[in-house]
Amino acid sequence: MLKVKFIPQNKEIEVSEGESLLEVARKAEVFIDAPCNGNGTCGKCKVKVVKGKVDTQKSRHLKDEEWNEGYILACCSKVKEDVVIEVPSNAGSAMHGMKIEALSGEREERIFERAKKQILDNGMEFKTYIKKDYIELDLPTLDDNISDFERIKRHLRNNLGYNQVFCRLPMLRKMPPILREKDFKVTITHIPRGQGKTTIVNMESGDTTDRLYGIALDIGTTSVAACLVDLQGGKLIAKASSGNAQIKYGADVINRIMYSTKKDGLKVLNDAIIKETINPLLRKMYEDSGIDKDEIVSFIAAGNTTMSHLFLGVYPDYLRMEPYIPAFVKPPFIKASELGLEVNQETFIYLVPSVASYVGGDITAGVLSSGIWSSDENILFIDLGTNGEIVFGNKEFLMTCACSAGPAFEGGEISCGMRAANGAIEKVKINKDTYEPEISFIGNDKPLGVCGSGIIDLICELMFSGITDRRGKLIKNLNTSRVRFDENGIGEYIIVFKEEYELEKDITITEVDIDNFIRAKAAIYSGLTTLLTGLGMDCTMIDKIYIAGGIGNSLDIKNSIKIGMLPDVDESKISYVGNSSLMGCYLILMSEDGRHKLEELSNHMTYVELSADPGYMDEFISASFLPHTDIEKFPTVKQLLEK
Amino acid sequence: MLKVKFIPQNKEIEVSEGESLLEVARKAEVFIDAPCNGNGTCGKCKVKVVKGKVDTQKSRHLKDEEWNEGYILACCSKVKEDVVIEVPSNAGSAMHGMKIEALSGEREERIFERAKKQILDNGMEFKTYIKKDYIELDLPTLDDNISDFERIKRHLRNNLGYNQVFCRLPMLRKMPPILREKDFKVTITHIPRGQGKTTIVNMESGDTTDRLYGIALDIGTTSVAACLVDLQGGKLIAKASSGNAQIKYGADVINRIMYSTKKDGLKVLNDAIIKETINPLLRKMYEDSGIDKDEIVSFIAAGNTTMSHLFLGVYPDYLRMEPYIPAFVKPPFIKASELGLEVNQETFIYLVPSVASYVGGDITAGVLSSGIWSSDENILFIDLGTNGEIVFGNKEFLMTCACSAGPAFEGGEISCGMRAANGAIEKVKINKDTYEPEISFIGNDKPLGVCGSGIIDLICELMFSGITDRRGKLIKNLNTSRVRFDENGIGEYIIVFKEEYELEKDITITEVDIDNFIRAKAAIYSGLTTLLTGLGMDCTMIDKIYIAGGIGNSLDIKNSIKIGMLPDVDESKISYVGNSSLMGCYLILMSEDGRHKLEELSNHMTYVELSADPGYMDEFISASFLPHTDIEKFPTVKQLLEK
Repeated sequence: MLKVKFIPQNKEIEVSEGESLLEVARKAEVFIDAPCNGNGTCGKCKVKVVKGKVDTQKSRHLKDEEWNEGYILACCSKVKEDVVIEVPSNAGSAMHGMKIEALSGEREERIFERAKKQILDNGMEFKTYIKKDYIELDLPTLDDNISDFERIKRHLRNNLGYNQVFCRLPMLRKMPPILREKDFKVTITHIPRGQGKTTIVNMESGDTTDRLYGIALDIGTTSVAACLVDLQGGKLIAKASSGNAQIKYGADVINRIMYSTKKDGLKVLNDAIIKETINPLLRKMYEDSGIDKDEIVSFIAAGNTTMSHLFLGVYPDYLRMEPYIPAFVKPPFIKASELGLEVNQETFIYLVPSVASYVGGDITAGVLSSGIWSSDENILFIDLGTNGEIVFGNKEFLMTCACSAGPAFEGGEISCGMRAANGAIEKVKINKDTYEPEISFIGNDKPLGVCGSGIIDLICELMFSGITDRRGKLIKNLNTSRVRFDENGIGEYIIVFKEEYELEKDITITEVDIDNFIRAKAAIYSGLTTLLTGLGMDCTMIDKIYIAGGIGNSLDIKNSIKIGMLPDVDESKISYVGNSSLMGCYLILMSEDGRHKLEELSNHMTYVELSADPGYMDEFISASFLPHTDIEKFPTVKQLLEK
Repeated sequence: MLKVKFIPQNKEIEVSEGESLLEVARKAEVFIDAPCNGNGTCGKCKVKVVKGKVDTQKSRHLKDEEWNEGYILACCSKVKEDVVIEVPSNAGSAMHGMKIEALSGEREERIFERAKKQILDNGMEFKTYIKKDYIELDLPTLDDNISDFERIKRHLRNNLGYNQVFCRLPMLRKMPPILREKDFKVTITHIPRGQGKTTIVNMESGDTTDRLYGIALDIGTTSVAACLVDLQGGKLIAKASSGNAQIKYGADVINRIMYSTKKDGLKVLNDAIIKETINPLLRKMYEDSGIDKDEIVSFIAAGNTTMSHLFLGVYPDYLRMEPYIPAFVKPPFIKASELGLEVNQETFIYLVPSVASYVGGDITAGVLSSGIWSSDENILFIDLGTNGEIVFGNKEFLMTCACSAGPAFEGGEISCGMRAANGAIEKVKINKDTYEPEISFIGNDKPLGVCGSGIIDLICELMFSGITDRRGKLIKNLNTSRVRFDENGIGEYIIVFKEEYELEKDITITEVDIDNFIRAKAAIYSGLTTLLTGLGMDCTMIDKIYIAGGIGNSLDIKNSIKIGMLPDVDESKISYVGNSSLMGCYLILMSEDGRHKLEELSNHMTYVELSADPGYMDEFISASFLPHTDIEKFPTVKQLLEK
C-alpha cells in the first residue's frame, strides 16, 4: 500500500499503486473540483505534487511555469509511490458553493406572492390537501375495549365523517404511547382522499393544529434551493440554498450519469444529493425556525430528469444513450422513509413529473408558476440553469425543447466560473478607454469567481470595448496589462489581480472560457429559433420572455441581447422570474388544484427533439458568434456596433 | 469488569458486578430456558456454578442435593466475581425445539384438501388474486421514446385493459435493467384491484408465468409453522416448523409483553421472531424447493394478538394491563421490506385480523378453515396452544373467549415439558400392577421430554392406576421406584430413568407440574362451560368439538375427557384438526373470497370476557380436580372410576 497525504487538509490515505489521484482524493474526502469528471478536458483539478512523484502527463491546461512547479491534473495522474499533494484553495471552488445560505426573504416572498396570483386568478383554490384535526377520544374501559386504531377510526367516522381510515406501520407503531401521553387527546395529521377516505400520516399529543409545515425543493444540477412553508396560509418560514454536492462527480448531467455507471456510483450520487445536500439544508431551516423534522408532512421536489432519477436512486444510464429513455417521467408514490430524507418518515414525497429525457420536472413546475398556460399572449420561457430548457406557447399550446448548453450559465466549465453565491462577481463594466473593469460581487468579503450574469457582462463589455473581436478572441497589443497571452498563444483578460484582494491567483477569463460560453449562449438562441421556425413563427411573434434559473438575479437583459443570447426584442418584454421551479413547488405544496393543473401541463407539453431537426446545427453554428453571423437579426445591436 | 464463562459452550463474557446471570447468558448467546422470564417461579433456568461464587439464594426448585452440588437458578443470581457456569444440556430444552423440521407432507396435504373443501362447498372461488403476465413491449426508438414505466403502462392499457398501473420505488429501481435483459420481454407479477387498476410487484425477464409462489405462516407463542405454496393450483411445495425463538424471553405472552417493556426489549423480541425464527424457516424451504425468495409474492400470517404485535414491532404493553387494549386488531397495509422478511421486498404481508386482546388472528384463521361459519350444527372449537381459545357457534352466530391456560399444552412451565418435536414423549400408558410406563416418542433417537398429549396421558394414567389421587397428588408408599419425594415432601413420578437412554437426568413429572397442568385444563373446561352457560346452553347441545393447536397429533380424546379437560360427550363428536391457523392462512393465500369471508368473521365474532363473568372463578375452582369436583358432570368417567 502507498501513502497519499493531502495538505493543507492534512488527510492521509493508503491506496494501491495505479489508483487515480482524483478518486483517491474523493475517498479521503478532500474535495477537488472536477466538472468534467476526470476526462482531462476542464483542467480544474489542478493540484501540486510537493513530495514524491506521480504517473502523469502534461496537459494543455497546465502552463510551462505551473508544470515546472509540480502542478498536475489530479484526474490524469496515478499514484506510484508515497506522495504529498497540495490542494490549492481554489481547487475546491465547487465546495465554496456548498456553503448553505438563507435565501433573501423579502424578495422570495414577493415572487411567491406573484406565483400565488397565478392560482387565484385562474379560479383555483390556494389550500393544501393535508389536514390537522384535534380529537378527544373516549377513554378505554373494560366495556369499551376496542383497539387503539379502531378507537381512532370510530371517532373519525362518528365525528368527522371518515368511514375509511388508513395508516401505515410506522404510524401504528407510534400510536399507543402518543395516545396515552395526554389522556387520548391527540392531533392527527391526515390526507383525505374523497369518498370518506383518509390516511393518517402523523399523530401528536394534545392540540397542535396550529403547526402544519411543508417543504418545497428545487434540485438543480449545480444549485439546490429549499423553502419551509406554513401550510396554513402559505407563509415562508425559512429558506436555504447551497451547491449540489454531486458537483464533485461531474458538473453536468452527462458526467453525472457516467459516474452512476461506476461501481456504487448510483449510491454515491444518491447519497450526495440526499445526505450531503438536501438533509443539511433541511437541518439549517429547522435550526433557523425551531420547527421539528417530524412536523414536516408535505414535500414537493422538482429537478431535471437526471436529477429526478438520481434523487430517487433510479439508474439513469439509458437517458444518455440513444434513444434516450428515462426510467420514468411520472414518479410512483414515495414515502420519505424510502429516501432517507430528514422529514416526518410518513411524508409523501411528490416529485414533479418530467416531460421528456431532457425536459424535467423543474420545467413543468416553472411553467406552472410562470402562468404561460393561462396566457393569451405568446410567452417564451427560458430556464438558464445547467443546460437550458425552453418552453414556448400560450393557453392553447405549449412546445418545449432542451438545449445542450452545458453548465456555463452557472459557472461550470469556465475557469473563473462559480455559481451565484457569496464571492461571485455578478456585474462587470469595462472602461472603453482604460480597459479597466468595474465589478460588483455578492457579499462583503472578496471576489472568488464570476457567476453567469457576470460572464454575460464580461463578454459583452469585452466586445464593446474592443478587447475582443466578435469571435470572442482577445486583441493583441492593446495598451493594458489586463490582457495577456500564454506560451501557446491563448489569451486571457484579468478581471481581478490577486494583489487587489489578497487572492492566491488572479481571476481571469480565458479565450477558452469565452468560447465555451459563446457555445452555451448559441445553444439557447439556436434552440429558441429552431422551436419557433418549426411552428412557422419568428421572434417578432414573441409577446413576452421569462428568464428563469440559476444564472443569477443580476442578469443584464440588454447585455444578454447584445451578446446574442436572447433575441433582439424590446427589452420591456423580457423579465427575470428567478427560481420558477422552486416557485412551482411552492404552488403545488399550497394548492391541490395547482397540482392537478401541473399534471395536466406535464401531459400536454409537446417535446421537440432539436437534434432531430435538420436546421438546428446550422442555426447553432451561425449563433456561435457575437451576437450572430447574421447581424441583421440583431438590428439594435447592429446600430450600437456601428456607432 | 468481571468475567463469566459458560461451559460446555465455552463462551466468555465481561460483565459488571450485580448483573443477572440469566441476562448475562442471553448476552453471551448461551440459551437457558426461562419460561417465567426471571420471576423465579418455573425453576427451569437451573445451572451449576463450577468455579467462583454468585450472589444467590436457595429456591424451592432446588433440591438440597442440587444446592450442595452448586446448582442455582440463573434468574435469581447476580454476578459478584469471576465465575465459570456449567449449563446442563437440558437447560436449553426450548432450544431443542428451535430445530427446523419439515412438516409431514402427506398429512398436511390431506388436511389442506379438507380445508379447501370449505371454500369450494360454499361456492367461493379457490383462486389467488395475484396475477402473472408475460408481455413483449415495443422496443424504444427515437420516435417512440416514452419512459420505461410509461411503456409498460401503455402496453398494459392497450393489451390487457388496465388503465391505471401503479408500482412503488423499489420496483421502479429494478425496471430499467430487467427490461433490457431480454429485449423488453418480461413477466410482470401484479395485483389487479378492479376498475382497471393494478399494481406491479415484481418483474422478471423472459417468460416465468409458470412460477408464482406464496407463504402461509402460523406464528405460535411456542411453535412457528410455515408452508410454501404454488399459487397456481395450491400445491404444497415445502413445509417447515420450529420453536419460536422468543421463548428464551418468556414462555407465555404475559412474560413476553413484560420483556418488551425493557430497554430495546421490543426490538429484541421482533428480531427473535423475524430474524431468528421466520427467516430461517423460509431459507430452509427455499433450500428444499429451489425457489428464490424474490419469487415469493404473497404472504399470509396469523398469530395471537400479542404475537401479532411483536411480529409487527408494535408495543404490546397495554394488552397486559386493564382494560387490556391492543394497538390494533386489523393491521394496516404492510410490505415485506418494512419487516425485514426474506421474501420479495414488494410483497404485501397480510396479517390475519384479531378479534380481541386475547383472541387473535390464529383463531380467526382457525374458524375459517374449520368451517364452523357454514355449519348447521353447533360446533365447539378449542385451540390448545399456549393459552387456549374457544369459539362456539354455527352459521348463525360465533361466540369466543380466551382461557388463561398458560403454555402447559405445549410443554411450557412443566419441568419435563417440551413442544411436540423430535424427542417428545407423545403417548404414555402405565401398567396398573407394576406402575411401569410404556412410552412412545417422536423420532428415533431418544426421549427428551413430554409434549402436551403425553402429559394428558400421563396425568390420566397416573390417576387411573392409583399413583395419584384425584387432586393429582402422588400416593406415598407404593411398591415402585418410579415414585419418589424430595426433602420438602414434593413427589415426582419417573417416566424415564436416565440410565434407560443415557440421559443426563431422569425425565420426571412432579406434583408441581401436575398441578400446573390441572389448572390449565381447568381453565379450558371452565371457559367452555361459562361460554355455554352464558348462552343458556350446556354440553349436551354441542354437536361437534374440534381440537386445534400445538398440543400434538397424538392427543388421546378419551384421556382428555377422563382428566376433565374436554366435556363428557360421545368421543365420536370430537376430532383433532391440527394447525387450523396455518390451514386458514393457506386458504386466504389461495382464495380472495376466503379472505373476504375471514374479514367478515373477524367482524362478527362476539368476544366474551371470562374474567367479567361472576360464575367463572367458581367454575374454574370446581374444574381444578380430576376430572371435576362434580363427578356427575362426567358420567362415563364416573363409571370407569367406580369399576
